[in-house]
Amino acid sequence: MKFDKASHSEHISTHFDAELEQIKSNLMAMGGLVEQQLADALAALASRDALLAERAQKSDNKINQMEITIDEECIRIIARRQPAASDLRLVVAISKANRDLERVGDETCRIARYATKMLREGVPSNTEVRHIGRHVSEMVRNSLTAFARYDTELAYQVAREDFNVDEEYKFAMRALVTDMMEEPRHVARNMNIIWILRSLERIGDHACNISDHLIYLVKGINVSHSSLEQIKETVRE
Amino acid sequence: MKFDKASHSEHISTHFDAELEQIKSNLMAMGGLVEQQLADALAALASRDALLAERAQKSDNKINQMEITIDEECIRIIARRQPAASDLRLVVAISKANRDLERVGDETCRIARYATKMLREGVPSNTEVRHIGRHVSEMVRNSLTAFARYDTELAYQVAREDFNVDEEYKFAMRALVTDMMEEPRHVARNMNIIWILRSLERIGDHACNISDHLIYLVKGINVSHSSLEQIKETVRE
Repeated sequence: MKFDKASHSEHISTHFDAELEQIKSNLMAMGGLVEQQLADALAALASRDALLAERAQKSDNKINQMEITIDEECIRIIARRQPAASDLRLVVAISKANRDLERVGDETCRIARYATKMLREGVPSNTEVRHIGRHVSEMVRNSLTAFARYDTELAYQVAREDFNVDEEYKFAMRALVTDMMEEPRHVARNMNIIWILRSLERIGDHACNISDHLIYLVKGINVSHSSLEQIKETVRE
Repeated sequence: MKFDKASHSEHISTHFDAELEQIKSNLMAMGGLVEQQLADALAALASRDALLAERAQKSDNKINQMEITIDEECIRIIARRQPAASDLRLVVAISKANRDLERVGDETCRIARYATKMLREGVPSNTEVRHIGRHVSEMVRNSLTAFARYDTELAYQVAREDFNVDEEYKFAMRALVTDMMEEPRHVARNMNIIWILRSLERIGDHACNISDHLIYLVKGINVSHSSLEQIKETVRE
């Protein structure tokens, strides 16, 4: 059941493989747009730029439309081409990664809305948002690179990073809650940051899911509920 | 020797239909388990019952395993049977609803963990959790009934209910945040309730998604990014 990268790219010449390559590159194009949207939302917070926050929110429609198109293409290719083995796994993995990417877009749109709100209220962001934001953006980029290159080792690194992000997230949350207890005037502004961190943490989860789909594609094994140690074994065996 | 094409294809389709019915009933069984898990988590909060909270958390493994099994069955049926038209839509809709149901299980597990924490800390739940919890449970039940009966009108009602839940959620959130500003000693306990309400609101979204997948199955139209008005038109035309 293993995915043979060499033989897969060898018969790229056939029309069917061209179609598969097309939906894969459509997914990558959507990934690029989502990455840009996330970069805009985080830059809006860091540099207090309302226009960037607005641009990030406006991307949502385009990303939703791309999700529907890729989903339809996946179903059409299954109906017309009746793919088997690794071709079918590629279509299934693209279809699942498509949904996770769209969710990253949703969470990013939420962050951009909070950015707009905070700019309007004159509330500053904080270093945890910057730090975790950078970390999570890297996870999204790496999950897409892993998918593009069938790189299961990089996919495993994404899963490993998620544990670090979760720790950073819990630490930041505790600090924000403690601050609210000591300084009730900070409640409203900290809640904005809490929701942004929550969205960032969710984006990290979706980057992990995208990596899981790539591992399924290459190894034929569903690792979506596996431990980090099991993922490592699956990838390196 | 005459080849009876009609009876042959009848035989094949009968067997195939039995396979399709089987994965659909596996999905419904998983739905039943998720409904029970949610009922347990909410009852744990309402009647301060730690055993129910524990049971809800323990269901998670079983639900995750069911998700993997149904996912594998969907892929196997596509590879072996090469379904077309409405059969393919059924497999796709089951596969997507499967993922949403598993997410409902995840959010419910999170609620059960907060229930355990609140019971340990002697913190009471509140009426909003009870009220929104009942509302969201009804949405999950109706989305599964809609799926079981191919009832698009009921699926539309679920989408409509989500707007009411969102309003109730926003109202409850505002009250909890205001209370934290006025009474800093309530910060820690209100944060528990805020996370529970957030999970309930997400469960409502997943119930909506399951309804969307059913509408796609019956009508062949992807309504996942449609307005409520567009969904109504799609269902009633």
